[in-house]
Amino acid sequence: MEFTFFLDQDIKLPLYIQLYEHIKTEIQLGRIKEGEKLPSIRNLAQVLQVSKQTIETAYQQLIAEGYVQSRPRSGIIVLPVEEKEPNLVRFSAVFASAPAEERNVLYDFKYGDIDVDLFPMKIWRQCINTALDGPARDILLYGPYQGNADLRDEIRKYVFRARGISCSAEQIFLFGGTQQSVSFLSRLLHLQDGNVAMENPGYEGVRSVFLHYNCNIIPISLEKDGICIDELQKIRAKAVYVTPSHQFPLGMVLPIGKRLQLLQWACDTSSFILEDDYDSEFRYIGKPIPSLKSLDKEERVVYCGTFSKCFLPAARISYVILPLSLVEQGKQHINHCSQAASPILQKALSIFMKEGYFERHIRRMKTLYQHKHKVLLQSIEQFMGDHVNVIGQRAGLHILLHIKNGDAAHLIKKAEEHGIQVYSPARHWLHQEEAPSAFVMLGFGGLSQENIREGIRLLALIWNFLEV
Amino acid sequence: MEFTFFLDQDIKLPLYIQLYEHIKTEIQLGRIKEGEKLPSIRNLAQVLQVSKQTIETAYQQLIAEGYVQSRPRSGIIVLPVEEKEPNLVRFSAVFASAPAEERNVLYDFKYGDIDVDLFPMKIWRQCINTALDGPARDILLYGPYQGNADLRDEIRKYVFRARGISCSAEQIFLFGGTQQSVSFLSRLLHLQDGNVAMENPGYEGVRSVFLHYNCNIIPISLEKDGICIDELQKIRAKAVYVTPSHQFPLGMVLPIGKRLQLLQWACDTSSFILEDDYDSEFRYIGKPIPSLKSLDKEERVVYCGTFSKCFLPAARISYVILPLSLVEQGKQHINHCSQAASPILQKALSIFMKEGYFERHIRRMKTLYQHKHKVLLQSIEQFMGDHVNVIGQRAGLHILLHIKNGDAAHLIKKAEEHGIQVYSPARHWLHQEEAPSAFVMLGFGGLSQENIREGIRLLALIWNFLEV
Repeated sequence: MEFTFFLDQDIKLPLYIQLYEHIKTEIQLGRIKEGEKLPSIRNLAQVLQVSKQTIETAYQQLIAEGYVQSRPRSGIIVLPVEEKEPNLVRFSAVFASAPAEERNVLYDFKYGDIDVDLFPMKIWRQCINTALDGPARDILLYGPYQGNADLRDEIRKYVFRARGISCSAEQIFLFGGTQQSVSFLSRLLHLQDGNVAMENPGYEGVRSVFLHYNCNIIPISLEKDGICIDELQKIRAKAVYVTPSHQFPLGMVLPIGKRLQLLQWACDTSSFILEDDYDSEFRYIGKPIPSLKSLDKEERVVYCGTFSKCFLPAARISYVILPLSLVEQGKQHINHCSQAASPILQKALSIFMKEGYFERHIRRMKTLYQHKHKVLLQSIEQFMGDHVNVIGQRAGLHILLHIKNGDAAHLIKKAEEHGIQVYSPARHWLHQEEAPSAFVMLGFGGLSQENIREGIRLLALIWNFLEV
Repeated sequence: MEFTFFLDQDIKLPLYIQLYEHIKTEIQLGRIKEGEKLPSIRNLAQVLQVSKQTIETAYQQLIAEGYVQSRPRSGIIVLPVEEKEPNLVRFSAVFASAPAEERNVLYDFKYGDIDVDLFPMKIWRQCINTALDGPARDILLYGPYQGNADLRDEIRKYVFRARGISCSAEQIFLFGGTQQSVSFLSRLLHLQDGNVAMENPGYEGVRSVFLHYNCNIIPISLEKDGICIDELQKIRAKAVYVTPSHQFPLGMVLPIGKRLQLLQWACDTSSFILEDDYDSEFRYIGKPIPSLKSLDKEERVVYCGTFSKCFLPAARISYVILPLSLVEQGKQHINHCSQAASPILQKALSIFMKEGYFERHIRRMKTLYQHKHKVLLQSIEQFMGDHVNVIGQRAGLHILLHIKNGDAAHLIKKAEEHGIQVYSPARHWLHQEEAPSAFVMLGFGGLSQENIREGIRLLALIWNFLEV
């Protein structure tokens, strides 16, 4: 057996995994055939200039997964594969008999998942328990409409340090998620039945809230550097919703020049800007750009933040920072809404922030996601090569794949049949039928570096990008 | 000093508290004057036929609160009172200098508070910690749109046992509070811009949700036994929102005959009934009446439940039970909404229910609230006598006072100035100006029996109901 294989010492992935992946792919593609013998451990270690342990570990994994068998006096033999992609076929058979929601998904590139392995569970548990030790009335009853005062004060300090936003805790209102935040703002700013401008594509979760209030959505095109200001200047809208730190879903970062133009537009037309800064913490390339809110001298920006991306979706806590001029109205409006974020978790989060765990967590996650992001881009390059372009890779927890030849809907379905979940971003276009057919969205926050790599490898295999 | 005082052995309140209250009131009203000497402990014990310990304890409390002083060789002397209501004046001085939200409220008859003293904190903490021990993905990420499957199954079992409702967990959808539930239903049933009938008065929190969706609210009058079916039959509406177990805020229980008429109306007009069963657990007088949902053969009833009254407002968990015919649509709608209830607390609550703690808690609370309810009614009778009527006392965690002579708004303000919070139910009328001016709303769930009694005594004092 000829062995054309180069271990890449620069990739952070352990050598045994690279070797294991390589042989597995060769077997799946039928380039190493049933009955063939793998090189002996000693030989291969010499050829590849690595330790025997590396080879042994890779072989052990292949044996465990049933690709090869160790036979006394014969060596390591490749087992029969019923079809060209044995493990994929096996998965398919399982999936076919189960309803979609029960399918055993191997790798889910779901946007919105966070890393669960490095989550500081012990500390978070302590914070919850400390919160439960507090005065019973504070953690059993409904709590203040506007949200826990301690937490609002911690948020005030955080946005000042991290986003350059100077505000008082009185300006901060807590909610149970960004949709809740925007729902409140729709009523506060009387957006019902009125014109609201949105990037197109733009976050569907927020657009659906506007549509619930019967808003007339005016789609604004995106240029390479974000929202098209010229288009915006031609329309009238009570408010524009934007994601300047990391456009959702296309991923570009709005440059400072356009930020200032956007602010000027809002002043000129007395409109409000809803700045959704959902994952600004995670930025990998280029210098940080100040938040719109921090540049907002004329009080036209309403800032929307969330703990779902940077900390914990399951906390269900988001916040809004109102311009001073809207605070009194905000307090009146909030009196008609029960607070959906749990006072228990609000208190726990305030402790988590006060003790400095939150910013430590952000720093740690930033490094971690940067690594995952790098592995994702490397794997795409390595396994998919010229078949795809990557879009929006400067920040955040997702990227878009632009498939050069092929229909994304078909590829997504094919991947799903083999247990790999990837997603279409089409729902984020105002008119789905206008969405380009070549985009696949990959969230990577919830997958380990190894699973990102293996998932991309399998995708490439399933999509026939690997065959030369 | 003449002592016209009768200890009431029938009232469950300890005798020393009755004595202490009596003397305090007499001093506050100026009927026992500065410098007067209280009867000796031995004498009073003989006159009242109680133990010396009883008298001693009452006197000690009066000394501690500064009403009287024990002087060697002189006995117990009434101290100078600068004005007729010394402690009340003292409170007023403190309040006058503080903004309303910082005022130190002595007794808050707030509707919506639960009893915090008997809350099973230790067990609830265990349940949260057990939940945190579960698979990380289940308690860190967003969780299923429809809500935790275990919790939905526990709710299914509970509503079957407690409310006679037969449904599957698939019909149950979780939300972060009743307003969220109704918001979802408004969209699911396409109530936007349409006619929605509501009891008038009716729960303002829900009405405000309908108004956010620009619904046309059709107010339906209340008769002594609840919603007026005749009026309902004259109008057309996509849905009617009702509180049959305990009308909010007037408190009557809808009799079975009217329930059947209501269901018939919904069938005849193809309308939906939104049954808000917010505090059905707490019923003190009369036999239980089946929930509307349990009588619903034609799938016209949408059931709304909440854990805020019967368990824990701070959990922020409510639920909706959809008719089978709406389940598929419901699942589609929910895909556009992030789940506002925390997966951590959903899981903890499912454990709390599964282990049987929930139903035990309900039983305990029912007994407790029944006692509080009794003390409230007794205190009102004792201290307010003919000045008021009580409305809606068969169930729930609040009653209405009907003030026979006097303006409720003025009395509420006067009470607030003295540190006692009572509330106007006027906001629950569709047109507030049509609300009767004689109603005061008293929630009693969050106050201890002693505080209920003391609060009512002080209210009677402040409102001049005590002076003969």
